[in-house]
Amino acid sequence: MTPGPTNVPERVMRAMLAPIVNHRCEEFSSLFRRIVDKSKTVFETNGDIVVLTASGTGGVEAAVRSVVRSNDSIVVPIFGEFGERLAETITLAGGKVIRVNAPYGSAPEPDAIEAAFEKAGKVKALCTVSNETSTGVRYKWLKEAGEIAAKHGSFFIVDAVTSLGGDEISVDRLGIDVCATASHKCLAAPPGLALLSVSERAKKYAVENPSSTMYFDLAKQFKFAEKAETPYTPSLPLFYALDEALSIILEETLPKRIQRHKTCAEAFYDAFEALDMDGFAQRDLRSNTVTAFKYSNGVDDHKFRKTLEEKFQVHIAGGFGEYKGKLFRVGCMGEVAAYHVLTTVAAVASALMLQNIRCDPALAMSVAEQKLRILDR
Amino acid sequence: MTPGPTNVPERVMRAMLAPIVNHRCEEFSSLFRRIVDKSKTVFETNGDIVVLTASGTGGVEAAVRSVVRSNDSIVVPIFGEFGERLAETITLAGGKVIRVNAPYGSAPEPDAIEAAFEKAGKVKALCTVSNETSTGVRYKWLKEAGEIAAKHGSFFIVDAVTSLGGDEISVDRLGIDVCATASHKCLAAPPGLALLSVSERAKKYAVENPSSTMYFDLAKQFKFAEKAETPYTPSLPLFYALDEALSIILEETLPKRIQRHKTCAEAFYDAFEALDMDGFAQRDLRSNTVTAFKYSNGVDDHKFRKTLEEKFQVHIAGGFGEYKGKLFRVGCMGEVAAYHVLTTVAAVASALMLQNIRCDPALAMSVAEQKLRILDR
Repeated sequence: MTPGPTNVPERVMRAMLAPIVNHRCEEFSSLFRRIVDKSKTVFETNGDIVVLTASGTGGVEAAVRSVVRSNDSIVVPIFGEFGERLAETITLAGGKVIRVNAPYGSAPEPDAIEAAFEKAGKVKALCTVSNETSTGVRYKWLKEAGEIAAKHGSFFIVDAVTSLGGDEISVDRLGIDVCATASHKCLAAPPGLALLSVSERAKKYAVENPSSTMYFDLAKQFKFAEKAETPYTPSLPLFYALDEALSIILEETLPKRIQRHKTCAEAFYDAFEALDMDGFAQRDLRSNTVTAFKYSNGVDDHKFRKTLEEKFQVHIAGGFGEYKGKLFRVGCMGEVAAYHVLTTVAAVASALMLQNIRCDPALAMSVAEQKLRILDR
Repeated sequence: MTPGPTNVPERVMRAMLAPIVNHRCEEFSSLFRRIVDKSKTVFETNGDIVVLTASGTGGVEAAVRSVVRSNDSIVVPIFGEFGERLAETITLAGGKVIRVNAPYGSAPEPDAIEAAFEKAGKVKALCTVSNETSTGVRYKWLKEAGEIAAKHGSFFIVDAVTSLGGDEISVDRLGIDVCATASHKCLAAPPGLALLSVSERAKKYAVENPSSTMYFDLAKQFKFAEKAETPYTPSLPLFYALDEALSIILEETLPKRIQRHKTCAEAFYDAFEALDMDGFAQRDLRSNTVTAFKYSNGVDDHKFRKTLEEKFQVHIAGGFGEYKGKLFRVGCMGEVAAYHVLTTVAAVASALMLQNIRCDPALAMSVAEQKLRILDR
């Protein structure tokens, strides 16, 4: 129950056992085309899809380097550790980061972003995380942000690593030029692949202005994609697994999958609130894929998570940086279903009781179960 | 029988099915330490080991960016397509490439490298491929090259993607500062991981002078390696597979594995020569891991390789660039054994006969079998 890598269905794991074929043959090209087609449905885009053998951080770096060039001004809403990492990635690519900060737990409103654009003059791109894994904040103003970027003729780049496939990231409708995600979060495939969608405009820019890296240069990816190949050896087993994981998403259908994530997250928020542990994020910005909670009085973070692991085999995450010891995070991604929510709530309530924290486990269980009923329909 | 990705033993494939654990737990750290320890034996180094979720090209880029900074002069022996790719990677990292060219099939001798150093003045690093996959050339002067780099106080960086684990790349003895390889060549693990060894001196430089990429910056890798972790989510299934593949290497022992590669390569050279197809590489530079041959008169490349694939299920590779249609390449890596050599030779002889090329299959088979006998001892 950590915020990724998430559990991987047996079907997906077994897909990795397909024989290793050479990546310059029709068998690979056919796999490549299947993945691209299915990914377009999941990204809700008519744009191009690029799959890189790399973690999410690599995917975000490739997204950034698709359009960020030396001395470009880039507006970045920052409201957590992954926003900071995004800013650092942009700085390393030579971009000048124009920070739009908001206290952790909240996020910058569209007005603040518009103001940053007005003040900066020429802005090459607006880059944001869609879901801040460190604080459990969902950036609910993606549409407004996309409109601001479009109005100013800027590219719109989104790090959707912990939301795509589990929350609404409708790439074309939101006007996202480059959207990056990873295999091991809401897509529920094994870690090791990054997926990017690229708009026609961003593709044209990337092809005409190659970036200064070999591995993350999208121009090279597009050149080989013409023959349904990758420029460098792809991780075959991970490609097979991703293909299977995408099939599972299409079988469930994207709207139902997003609803399932949302319902499970709501059940977590209600249940832990019933245990006197409030969501860390501002109520209207609560994430549907990574839920974060403040500890109630007297709970020892280390002891609490150790008990969960050792006695209940439930793995959750602690807080980042200055929030270490003050909050805990529960992933709500991929395969997550009523079973995962209820067993986690039961384990958390039990761990609290073992620490002699007074709480109402019956209430927690009942509110969670009530919320989850919608999944049975 | 292509020059990678190579066949992966069943034991290694099955290792991928281990449950996906979180990479911030002791179970992963223990896996990490096992891989590092075994890799040190295979790299023959006391230096540090870095494992990246990326293909070999990503690993080489990380190696280059460990020490190459803007405007640094870098000497690069170029004798094939992968030397060209290395030069491009250095240029993209901001380095000034001082080319030491040699015709394809040969390689620049130490004198030419020394001359390039003398002429250039201050040289930050000498970067070379150890085994040129495009031409089947083994760079036999690694020791001399390392001595030249050391004499001039330069770093010595080696792209050993298609040789490490199958040929002699004794990192510390050869004075290699950064040596990059990939999981899916001689190590016989699935594609998707790059491995680097880093000398104390190169590590110090990389830590004190972080590179301008997020994903390939070694300083971040070293920071997390202190607690036996990776900075970004590693590809767990590939790590498990690599651990198993490294165990297989240690069970066989490195010297025996190198001898097996060498013997199989020699059997290929002898057998194809008996079929009137000469090795493309200069005799003293013939690769032990990727063998390349000139077609005898009248052989149609496309038809020949198609016959091999369709009638014999033997996949080999064609020539690169200007050598397309003129030569073919047979991988001799990883699991390669007498069985692979003999069935490939039989298939090649048969494909020639089906094209009505006169040849002596009995002789080819006999010289190969003779050479391979040493493996039975």
